[in-house]
Amino acid sequence: MTKTGPIDFYFDFISPFGYFASLRIDALGAKHGREVVWRPMLLGVAVLKVMGLKPLLETPLKGEYLTKYAVPRYARLHKVPIDPRRFDEIGMAPVPPARAYWYLFARDPALAKRFAKDVLYGYWAERRDMAQPEALAEIAARHGVGRDEMIAGLHSKAAAERMRAEIDASIARGVFGSPFIIVDDEKFWGADNLEMLDLWLERGGW
Amino acid sequence: MTKTGPIDFYFDFISPFGYFASLRIDALGAKHGREVVWRPMLLGVAVLKVMGLKPLLETPLKGEYLTKYAVPRYARLHKVPIDPRRFDEIGMAPVPPARAYWYLFARDPALAKRFAKDVLYGYWAERRDMAQPEALAEIAARHGVGRDEMIAGLHSKAAAERMRAEIDASIARGVFGSPFIIVDDEKFWGADNLEMLDLWLERGGW
Repeated sequence: MTKTGPIDFYFDFISPFGYFASLRIDALGAKHGREVVWRPMLLGVAVLKVMGLKPLLETPLKGEYLTKYAVPRYARLHKVPIDPRRFDEIGMAPVPPARAYWYLFARDPALAKRFAKDVLYGYWAERRDMAQPEALAEIAARHGVGRDEMIAGLHSKAAAERMRAEIDASIARGVFGSPFIIVDDEKFWGADNLEMLDLWLERGGW
Repeated sequence: MTKTGPIDFYFDFISPFGYFASLRIDALGAKHGREVVWRPMLLGVAVLKVMGLKPLLETPLKGEYLTKYAVPRYARLHKVPIDPRRFDEIGMAPVPPARAYWYLFARDPALAKRFAKDVLYGYWAERRDMAQPEALAEIAARHGVGRDEMIAGLHSKAAAERMRAEIDASIARGVFGSPFIIVDDEKFWGADNLEMLDLWLERGGW
């Protein structure tokens, strides 16, 4: 029987590989007839604490590997829109964009996804600080959401609670990295695993 | 100018993805005319301590992901010779096989590599405890090294010092995972990156 369930796509707005995967995941879903639900989470400020780990970029050896080798190499290979200066200055408060996303998601998931794509582009390609409410409001306005609504929405108790509930649920499902993908209860960690995911969906598992 | 330097292949005998990569790395080197130097290290008992991290399999969320999803899935896809019971019982003192390797390496690197392949097969496919000196001696004997020499060699001060020096050198080069590959000063972490390495060698970088 062909499976048709959605792809849950977990990512942190400030994770480079989360950004890279975001540029490919919808096409991958479409190829296999799967809806893709974007689920921003907070890797550094929430999930890694559960794991008892430091943020990746502050981890000796690994931080340098990511910023000097793995991230620029992947970006060049896949011609990712990114400002190279970002490689050495990754870091932004990820809570405001995540809250804004979940506020919008409750209103319209498709709108929230378009918003998230613009936020990611703003942060990685245009090197904007997307933690600023005005920057988020400016992007929301492109998608028909009024400034005041967006500002109030991202500061709303409902958005904060939804984000917290989503993060708790993600941890309960075993999500510990960005990107992290769950489809048909199968789990895939890392942009380097998108080819494996593609093959998995094509074959229906193995 | 075509580069011809060796591929340094770092792995831990008890790392499943180190084992998986070991089954492909020599063919990859041969394809690109590169010598492959195997460099066993001690991920859990040495490198992760420098990083301030717990062993991967004891890390919440990540441990279960590896043993329940990523490792079995990769093994099935690539038809890796492995006893499935190993997935839930990964763990062996990695020092004896690493010391035995470095003892043999000083004598003959090609011999040491053949030995390492048999040790990995013994541990992963045959589910043997390759921390036992007699098990290491039995494998060494297949390659013409006498039992007493192997036992004495793996307990020798020279082997212990060589292993320690290799680990220190690997950390100085930024090695923090298994497998980890360095070629032409470019670094690749993880079996999921072998395709990237292949492409890198084919194109001469990008």
